[in-house]
Amino acid sequence: MCNDYAELKPSERLLLGPGPSNADPRVLRAMAAPLVGHLDPEFLQIMNDNMSLLRYVFQTKNELTMAMSGTGSAGMETVFVNLVEPGDKVVVCVNGVFGQRMVDVAQRAGAEVTVVNAPWGQIIEAAEVKKAVESVKPKLVAIVHAETSTGILQPLEEISAICKEADCLLVVDCVTSLGGVEVKIDEWGIDAAYSGTQKCLSCPPGLAPVTFNEKARAVINKRKNKVQSWYLDLTMIQNYWGQERFYHHTAPISMGYALRECLRVIYEEGLEARFARHKLNAEALKAGLKAMGFKLYAQEGRQLPSLTTAWIPEGVEDASTRKFLLNKYNIEIGGGLGEGKGKVWRFGLMGHNSTEKNVLTLLTALEAAFVYQGKTVEPGAGIAAALEVYKNK
Amino acid sequence: MCNDYAELKPSERLLLGPGPSNADPRVLRAMAAPLVGHLDPEFLQIMNDNMSLLRYVFQTKNELTMAMSGTGSAGMETVFVNLVEPGDKVVVCVNGVFGQRMVDVAQRAGAEVTVVNAPWGQIIEAAEVKKAVESVKPKLVAIVHAETSTGILQPLEEISAICKEADCLLVVDCVTSLGGVEVKIDEWGIDAAYSGTQKCLSCPPGLAPVTFNEKARAVINKRKNKVQSWYLDLTMIQNYWGQERFYHHTAPISMGYALRECLRVIYEEGLEARFARHKLNAEALKAGLKAMGFKLYAQEGRQLPSLTTAWIPEGVEDASTRKFLLNKYNIEIGGGLGEGKGKVWRFGLMGHNSTEKNVLTLLTALEAAFVYQGKTVEPGAGIAAALEVYKNK
Repeated sequence: MCNDYAELKPSERLLLGPGPSNADPRVLRAMAAPLVGHLDPEFLQIMNDNMSLLRYVFQTKNELTMAMSGTGSAGMETVFVNLVEPGDKVVVCVNGVFGQRMVDVAQRAGAEVTVVNAPWGQIIEAAEVKKAVESVKPKLVAIVHAETSTGILQPLEEISAICKEADCLLVVDCVTSLGGVEVKIDEWGIDAAYSGTQKCLSCPPGLAPVTFNEKARAVINKRKNKVQSWYLDLTMIQNYWGQERFYHHTAPISMGYALRECLRVIYEEGLEARFARHKLNAEALKAGLKAMGFKLYAQEGRQLPSLTTAWIPEGVEDASTRKFLLNKYNIEIGGGLGEGKGKVWRFGLMGHNSTEKNVLTLLTALEAAFVYQGKTVEPGAGIAAALEVYKNK
Repeated sequence: MCNDYAELKPSERLLLGPGPSNADPRVLRAMAAPLVGHLDPEFLQIMNDNMSLLRYVFQTKNELTMAMSGTGSAGMETVFVNLVEPGDKVVVCVNGVFGQRMVDVAQRAGAEVTVVNAPWGQIIEAAEVKKAVESVKPKLVAIVHAETSTGILQPLEEISAICKEADCLLVVDCVTSLGGVEVKIDEWGIDAAYSGTQKCLSCPPGLAPVTFNEKARAVINKRKNKVQSWYLDLTMIQNYWGQERFYHHTAPISMGYALRECLRVIYEEGLEARFARHKLNAEALKAGLKAMGFKLYAQEGRQLPSLTTAWIPEGVEDASTRKFLLNKYNIEIGGGLGEGKGKVWRFGLMGHNSTEKNVLTLLTALEAAFVYQGKTVEPGAGIAAALEVYKNK
């Protein structure tokens, strides 16, 4: 009935956009291991390892720390459908696409949402959150730690103190920060958080790490209404990941292998070394981009080490340049999202991909793309500036 | 902070329970291919291939045929949250765990559910559905095609005719049937269906194939309320899988590779040959089990070719025998679920695992387990009966 289906031969892309990033080759190999059942003692041990290793990267002691069987957006939905009941008041901070998505997800869960807006590419100011919390008296405040659409790294400690004082929960989106930059769940007083596997964890997309402290867990277990999603209902799922081992749904076995392997890689490197590596490579990339004439998009001093955003320079066309990089250099970079569409590029240096070689490769290919687009460039300026950063590290 | 995390070395299990089944080795290898982005032209082509190949196994022309980014239960939830609006009347047929789960999922989506019950291990009688449909006048009727908890294969054509006459939608759970036994979406007049990858498709768990005809799709696109799940909202997701290619969430890339490869394997074998293979091996297994003194659990003439269920014989203990098979033979079989817990075993011969070698291996290991449990057996009786089936095929 159909055409023939040829052998699978994906190109060897260098994924330097907003994610997915390239998985560590060890992680890809782990997925080729033979399947065991979802209630096999060996798989239960893998789940235990994953919980323990996720606690390590989340820097938390939270018992309810595990991976949901969906991508990062399923993690977002998990947090809202479990913590929110119809009519609950929720404050959501919005300075990019993923804040906007939280508003939508929270409303679908029945929340009465108040939005704290900030300009895209800027952080959310704690004073604004304080105002909203005082006037709304919400059940929870939700905020994005690493806004993938803009490249902003949001400070959280002051906002956490505001939530503590008002006795409301603090929910944080760590999709693009976890494993690439400090995420201190316990020290910062974050009550619930979620992430995805395909960014700084260097694992394929497909699982959503989540963590809930005892306060958040108590809110879930004292709900008046059933969680509206059966698939994401933590009142049941906690009993599959917990001692009871009650069957809920068939876990994605191979992705569980992959998660364990990527977390082992992180554990071997150590968080401190990993964060330093992300920071250094981001500094080199930014120096190189500036030397090539780019203006950075995200607020100075609040830029994500895992994702650098920059205005597309005048005289350079968005789509054709990204196509050139993809087709000629096998490099994927990200276009802008929402307000940044057509105007901004997003360069990811995440996990396994945050290396000097990738910084230099990207800058070299960008220079070639500029030449191809007929833009005047100072040959080697970007590379020289990046190398200078490495020399002075 | 934690113990050391050793190299991943899962045992080479033979998964002869209710799923997951062993993935085809080609499928495991496909997952080790390097990642591309979720909007890469190469991945969009893979999505197109997957849609086209899923239409082949679902035997449908439905445009909206694709894979949701979750396991089979996410497929179930997709159907209900998209087709049901609060207050809608729904008839759900229940003769096992997965019918029960549909009731729960439908109610969480706001449905007013009327249940048509049948004894576990028996089919749902069309006359009972007719009565319910005539009295309730529901928006949709939901039924399980292959009840994984009991091993029943449900006939659907008569029930479909009842739904057509009453102008209500027919929704079918094909988790354990798709790829192992006929699923004729178009010919049988099924409006929406879902499945999982980890049964007869011989792919790891993690994706949920779904299909909706134009009638069901029109219901979705004319909704008065937003779909309560953002993650499973087909009004948006259809625009990522469709021509528009709007970004919704980051697709699980490696699982997309795996799905394509398992579907290619099925396409190469051909549905007719595949179904005949499943039928023959199930017949041999049943003959062998009977010769060993087992009594089958599911209704005669309505037994699934992908999953055989039998009462655990007297003098044989459930848990210790399954443990013996797992630890000594690396074979996983399934215990009973719900009403069958501790009383029933479930033997899966799904996709790649439906082979003569596996039938004989299982019967041999069961005989050894019986001896180990001190049960008198007629040596070789099961094997002889199975071989007789193959000889006469």
